[in-house]
Amino acid sequence: MTLRVGILGAAGYTGIELIRLIDLHPHLELTYVAARENAGQKLGKVVPSTQGVPGLGDMNLERFESEDAQKIAQELDVVFTALPHAASARLGGALLDAGTQVVDLSADFRLRDLETYEQWYGVHPRPDLISQAVYGLPEIYREELKSAQLIACPGCYPTSAILPLVPLLREKLIEIDSTIIIDAKTGASGAGRKASPVTNFSEASEGMRPYKVAGGHRHTPEMEQELSLAAGKNLKVLFTPQLVPMIRGILTTTYARIKPGVSAEQCREAAMSHLGDTLVTVMPASRLPDTLHVRGSGRAQVAYELDERTGLLLGMCAIDNLARGSSAQAIQALNVSREFCETDGIPRLATFP
Amino acid sequence: MTLRVGILGAAGYTGIELIRLIDLHPHLELTYVAARENAGQKLGKVVPSTQGVPGLGDMNLERFESEDAQKIAQELDVVFTALPHAASARLGGALLDAGTQVVDLSADFRLRDLETYEQWYGVHPRPDLISQAVYGLPEIYREELKSAQLIACPGCYPTSAILPLVPLLREKLIEIDSTIIIDAKTGASGAGRKASPVTNFSEASEGMRPYKVAGGHRHTPEMEQELSLAAGKNLKVLFTPQLVPMIRGILTTTYARIKPGVSAEQCREAAMSHLGDTLVTVMPASRLPDTLHVRGSGRAQVAYELDERTGLLLGMCAIDNLARGSSAQAIQALNVSREFCETDGIPRLATFP
Amino acid sequence: MTLRVGILGAAGYTGIELIRLIDLHPHLELTYVAARENAGQKLGKVVPSTQGVPGLGDMNLERFESEDAQKIAQELDVVFTALPHAASARLGGALLDAGTQVVDLSADFRLRDLETYEQWYGVHPRPDLISQAVYGLPEIYREELKSAQLIACPGCYPTSAILPLVPLLREKLIEIDSTIIIDAKTGASGAGRKASPVTNFSEASEGMRPYKVAGGHRHTPEMEQELSLAAGKNLKVLFTPQLVPMIRGILTTTYARIKPGVSAEQCREAAMSHLGDTLVTVMPASRLPDTLHVRGSGRAQVAYELDERTGLLLGMCAIDNLARGSSAQAIQALNVSREFCETDGIPRLATFP
Amino acid sequence: MTLRVGILGAAGYTGIELIRLIDLHPHLELTYVAARENAGQKLGKVVPSTQGVPGLGDMNLERFESEDAQKIAQELDVVFTALPHAASARLGGALLDAGTQVVDLSADFRLRDLETYEQWYGVHPRPDLISQAVYGLPEIYREELKSAQLIACPGCYPTSAILPLVPLLREKLIEIDSTIIIDAKTGASGAGRKASPVTNFSEASEGMRPYKVAGGHRHTPEMEQELSLAAGKNLKVLFTPQLVPMIRGILTTTYARIKPGVSAEQCREAAMSHLGDTLVTVMPASRLPDTLHVRGSGRAQVAYELDERTGLLLGMCAIDNLARGSSAQAIQALNVSREFCETDGIPRLATFP
Repeated sequence: MTLRVGILGAAGYTGIELIRLIDLHPHLELTYVAARENAGQKLGKVVPSTQGVPGLGDMNLERFESEDAQKIAQELDVVFTALPHAASARLGGALLDAGTQVVDLSADFRLRDLETYEQWYGVHPRPDLISQAVYGLPEIYREELKSAQLIACPGCYPTSAILPLVPLLREKLIEIDSTIIIDAKTGASGAGRKASPVTNFSEASEGMRPYKVAGGHRHTPEMEQELSLAAGKNLKVLFTPQLVPMIRGILTTTYARIKPGVSAEQCREAAMSHLGDTLVTVMPASRLPDTLHVRGSGRAQVAYELDERTGLLLGMCAIDNLARGSSAQAIQALNVSREFCETDGIPRLATFP
Repeated sequence: MTLRVGILGAAGYTGIELIRLIDLHPHLELTYVAARENAGQKLGKVVPSTQGVPGLGDMNLERFESEDAQKIAQELDVVFTALPHAASARLGGALLDAGTQVVDLSADFRLRDLETYEQWYGVHPRPDLISQAVYGLPEIYREELKSAQLIACPGCYPTSAILPLVPLLREKLIEIDSTIIIDAKTGASGAGRKASPVTNFSEASEGMRPYKVAGGHRHTPEMEQELSLAAGKNLKVLFTPQLVPMIRGILTTTYARIKPGVSAEQCREAAMSHLGDTLVTVMPASRLPDTLHVRGSGRAQVAYELDERTGLLLGMCAIDNLARGSSAQAIQALNVSREFCETDGIPRLATFP
Repeated sequence: MTLRVGILGAAGYTGIELIRLIDLHPHLELTYVAARENAGQKLGKVVPSTQGVPGLGDMNLERFESEDAQKIAQELDVVFTALPHAASARLGGALLDAGTQVVDLSADFRLRDLETYEQWYGVHPRPDLISQAVYGLPEIYREELKSAQLIACPGCYPTSAILPLVPLLREKLIEIDSTIIIDAKTGASGAGRKASPVTNFSEASEGMRPYKVAGGHRHTPEMEQELSLAAGKNLKVLFTPQLVPMIRGILTTTYARIKPGVSAEQCREAAMSHLGDTLVTVMPASRLPDTLHVRGSGRAQVAYELDERTGLLLGMCAIDNLARGSSAQAIQALNVSREFCETDGIPRLATFP
Repeated sequence: MTLRVGILGAAGYTGIELIRLIDLHPHLELTYVAARENAGQKLGKVVPSTQGVPGLGDMNLERFESEDAQKIAQELDVVFTALPHAASARLGGALLDAGTQVVDLSADFRLRDLETYEQWYGVHPRPDLISQAVYGLPEIYREELKSAQLIACPGCYPTSAILPLVPLLREKLIEIDSTIIIDAKTGASGAGRKASPVTNFSEASEGMRPYKVAGGHRHTPEMEQELSLAAGKNLKVLFTPQLVPMIRGILTTTYARIKPGVSAEQCREAAMSHLGDTLVTVMPASRLPDTLHVRGSGRAQVAYELDERTGLLLGMCAIDNLARGSSAQAIQALNVSREFCETDGIPRLATFP
């Protein structure tokens, strides 16, 4: 069985990563690519890794408008929307209305609360669709994803915080009255393909810097939503994003107060039981995560260590922000929704080194 | 149809790259891994990208000796030997004798002339096998590879020089009386996994340096062998290897004198006709190769530009030294020998960015 | 006035950084260089940046033994000991006994409590000298450093934590009953010049990883000593070191609970008042530190932001681990002890980019 | 004696590098900074390495117009013009007319032939000044630079090619009838501070690529001018620029046919005799240049190796493109013109690592 697949936003990094993974997938065929600013150009020009690749390099980048939804929906079984927020909901929503399954990589359907969305992102073009979206983190929402027609792919930072923390919260292994600290570090590809001074090689290489600290980053409410759901109670996090000189990778270190008598090993067991080992590795004691060991793959490495002196538990997670943090996880969620093998099209192993 | 596959030297970079690609291959199953210095350890410990991966992380690294050849050969259809030269011929030779197909990633069977081998590498442990080895560059030796039992995978630098130059030599588009200059730049993974001062991050990042210049590098005779065969006449190259601060990638710029009246476009056509487009992209005029656009894939980008003022032709090539320059090309050659689809297990698209 | 200066351990990164800075210093002349493993070689061979530099490249690397102390002390006004711990105290101690001023870059004289030292580092060869050592952080110990004969240069991580936190503790702006979290990220040069797998370019570039977490790093007691002194009360920190792919730089993010009613601006004012602006920049509101902007210089950037929602204060600091975190700070301390201009020999400005 | 110094174009990389070096210089005081696009802002905002630095961070960035020349010239002894071509000649020319010494870092006064200039750069706003400009390569034009009022600083690539080749041409050690090949590799800072896709970290790190090959780069005529002058005869070069993932550094490998009987050692001797050792290191046999070993300094490393088999001589050179290739060389030329110590303000030693 082969699904016809389209991508809106095929010229950005998450779109390009989708192209790479779809090319590895036994049941997906890329038949439609759109990219507003590059419409009319060949894919091989805009995405040079496809130049000269039979069947890909010569594809034409289209300009998709809502009016085209009926027509395009005839030709597509699934569409990935890798667009800026608002545009994603508007254009993806039109295709959804016309019957296409939508896997949305933007922030548009991640937040369940419209008011929170509008506070951080502005007006939502399709609030009517929010309630039907399923949060595309397969380890947490595997059941809900089955037959989901609208999948809301998690943000990269939230993925790296939710994976290590949800098992602890569900099993009530950590205190939730004191703030959970989430100190995260990302590679430069998270900033997207658009050139900016902050990611100019000369100023990014050898530069390490925090940004949008002290509650200023939009991924804060997404983390709080999912962690509160797992805890069964509203909780707060302090999230610190930092930029480091690498292309791909997020390393997240979380700090939480352990409940009396709980060991790091119990945390590992909780993670294994809730996350499985299909695409998550729970590291054994004294082995720690490394972005290098997950790069290019759909794998997440999760680890726990307890500081006995202070009673603080470190939960750590390494992912590839473009793969597990975005496009590979999107395909994993699609696989679950279609009951394909969960790793179809997704490298289980990092490109190492 | 599934082949049982083993790797001797599974803990080095080319061995680890083989593991990644075999995991993507529909017809190969990794059943045996050996690594002398890490024998007795779990694969997940030594190759952290396999930690926790079902079926891989718990594999035991074996210590393979010649005496084990009969036994191991029963369990393997193919073995990749990713060992230092001499060890590769000795241990791979024993398995070949016992009936296993051998794909050798060392230098042992690349040179057809024993004397040349011994001048650069020392005593050859299995000179009797040299004549039956097929040089594993599928674009050039596709016919010879069919049913090959012993495949000699090309060196990384030679791959990057042979691809752009062989079409020109076969079609007699460049002069061969004046020296062909091959100015090549490689990423640090070419130096292998063993730590050394020259690849210490602090001294490799922000450092760019030539080494073994002026005829001092062992890949010189391999290049001269293959280019002379293509030209039908002995020719000389001046090869300059240089180390640049990146993990993967070789960019090779060759300089040769064009024959009167020949255009760059004729060179491009020759390349397309001799190399095809399965895993080689011949760049259109004014588009140039980039290691970033082939990284992690089996693809090579080849380009030609002519300097009219001086009559010199630039032939350029970008490859991933561990993929196309080594392990992916090894699998491509195996695919040809077994009449699998040539790209099975080999990403056609780079991991970009 | 010109002092004759020697370096024990001239072939390591902190030794080499001292050579660079001494060459910029108007009152220091390098007259003696020792390096155990490279004794007998020319400096230009071992430290290639000095190759061909008049007066430096041809210096001979000596092998210094305690027995030479009397003789060498005649020829030196100051010696920098950039040796492994224990060796530093033993050899530096011998020169100190013989009358040479000693600026020690090892850990040997940082801890005031012998028992703590021995718990983390083993037997101390010169416990008799501990009490006379002055901790070489000029912003904090400017008075004590005047005429100090034995200067104990702070560790790189402690420097980055002490600078932002001491003003807050002295001014009692943060709670000290809850653990202070110190999440720090360092470039690879902190691991030293000796090649190791963890800093091999291929495995360090694109890799980000924690190590020695949960109280396992030797810099923990040093931080606790200095912070407790500033607070006037024993306190605990949880210190998380992490390795990121850059050569130089430490970015440290600290988390502490603010006292009721205290603002981030008050924290900035405290820092300005305690640290001055000679070689510390206290960033204005909403501007954050960046290792790129201090690289190669003696400057530290310090910043504070308050998360009103959670009552947590972020104190952040960026330094160059080899310059401000080691060799430049050593020279700054020497300058204070000799009443030179505090920035002699120390670039005030980063090499940017 | 202290000169009052201004910079036009203080917000670009060469301008910022000048600020760093002027701060190290005993005879220069920075009193005026202009930057068109950032006029009205504080230097500390635009050049974050100066934030909080007494006397620098609070300087105001001015907008300089030709009409201001008389006034500004009263306040300045020297001005560095680090502007795009044409703007540099126009605004620098106005200050020169008003009596200020001008050190121009643009391409405006490098080419002696107006027609060649206009072919590559367009209309020249001040052709009347071309003849009085002195080419600011001190090792070659030390005499001419004394009292020069208008200094034309060499391009970065030309510096790296001229240094190793001029001694060979002056001493007639290489053939000039066959094309000299100049294969050069530069770090990303050569592309300037303006963000562009090609230097976006995610696409520059792990990317290595040629550009403007086959005679397309503007530095070709500059190289040919200076090499022809040294040879006493017009000669041609083929120049290949390539971008590699590092911030600073140019490594240039030149290929030329050696004259019969000439040895590499003779080439080294010629270089030592023509270039001296003040800021050039001629590497001994079998030691090769490395950009890491000159980074941040005014030093150039030059080396020669001969391939006996082919009769080709490799001349190699490593420089820091922003320091020796631009701002440090500008200050060196100024030092010569003012008879200061030639290395005032210029680190002789690299920042290593």
